[in-house]
Amino acid sequence: MSTVTRHALIAEAERLMRLCGYAAFSYADLAAKIGITKASIHYHFPTKERLAEALVDDAMQRFSAALEAITAGEQQAMARLRRYSTLFVDGFDEGLRPLCGALSHELGALPDSLRQRTHAYFTRHLAWLEAIIGEGQRQGELNAAPAPATTAQALLGALEGGSVVARALADKQLFFSGFEQLLGRLERHRDEPAARQA
Amino acid sequence: MSTVTRHALIAEAERLMRLCGYAAFSYADLAAKIGITKASIHYHFPTKERLAEALVDDAMQRFSAALEAITAGEQQAMARLRRYSTLFVDGFDEGLRPLCGALSHELGALPDSLRQRTHAYFTRHLAWLEAIIGEGQRQGELNAAPAPATTAQALLGALEGGSVVARALADKQLFFSGFEQLLGRLERHRDEPAARQA
Repeated sequence: MSTVTRHALIAEAERLMRLCGYAAFSYADLAAKIGITKASIHYHFPTKERLAEALVDDAMQRFSAALEAITAGEQQAMARLRRYSTLFVDGFDEGLRPLCGALSHELGALPDSLRQRTHAYFTRHLAWLEAIIGEGQRQGELNAAPAPATTAQALLGALEGGSVVARALADKQLFFSGFEQLLGRLERHRDEPAARQA
Repeated sequence: MSTVTRHALIAEAERLMRLCGYAAFSYADLAAKIGITKASIHYHFPTKERLAEALVDDAMQRFSAALEAITAGEQQAMARLRRYSTLFVDGFDEGLRPLCGALSHELGALPDSLRQRTHAYFTRHLAWLEAIIGEGQRQGELNAAPAPATTAQALLGALEGGSVVARALADKQLFFSGFEQLLGRLERHRDEPAARQA
């Protein structure tokens, strides 16, 4: 299998994971879509678990690169957080869930290797958010309370949940309701004291 | 099939939907768990779709009854919202997702009849939240801004997302991070003017 085919295979498997979930897609679906035999897929990915591991590892690398690009490209915490939020809505119009949310939802059906990757994926989200929020607070752009860790959890949850609600009601506008309300709470207005409590 | 068996079947199917999802469970799983033949299940629910419709209708009835009980049992908006939030965490320790969230996540694999029910389920959540928030605002218990509709979307999203994050990290404490922060924003403190803007 060429590198191009391997890439196409991982991309299509990720699309199916985000569309229907790990349990719902088969090598037959993939083979039909990519135009190769099931045997060719098995040769490179002996099991669906190995293929799923490869696609999550690939997605995590792209996610880390995206976070680095955001940190480098924006100086303000609010701008960084808003750019981060757009990562979640990518693919929404095609019925695709954020991969991290898809993994969490299917945790009960996932093998251990994917459960561990799901944990690492969410930990990566929270660590980046905490760092960005903490820096924004130290620089006086964001309110000092609540604490970065709690705020990071709330913001990540708002985007995961925004995805769930917007998807159920087929209304993209619902995606950012909670996230924007939380940002409003976080943003320090110039006429407010720096140490305003939550 | 007796009424008791039908009830056991629906209860077990709901558990499997919340644990693994619609696509992942089979009549063979159900038959083994309940101790009846697959033919018996097929006799009463000719397709998995019919069974899933019955379990969602059943869950929606229980949900509506729970909302009525909360409205009748609590007089304050904050107390009502906190009791509402506990509905989401039910079953978390057994790896069960809220049914509404499970349905939304699997939307891409669901037949039309279940997609419609998913829409109705979320609409029911939002309508109740809006009514409770609106009443709390009129009575001066809650801040007048943001609007009930936006706040309802944010609170529902926070709980759906809290479920996703808490599940991925196997940490129940993460469930309510966003919800509590949004409530903090909503709660009117006695020394604040009634018309405080967001």
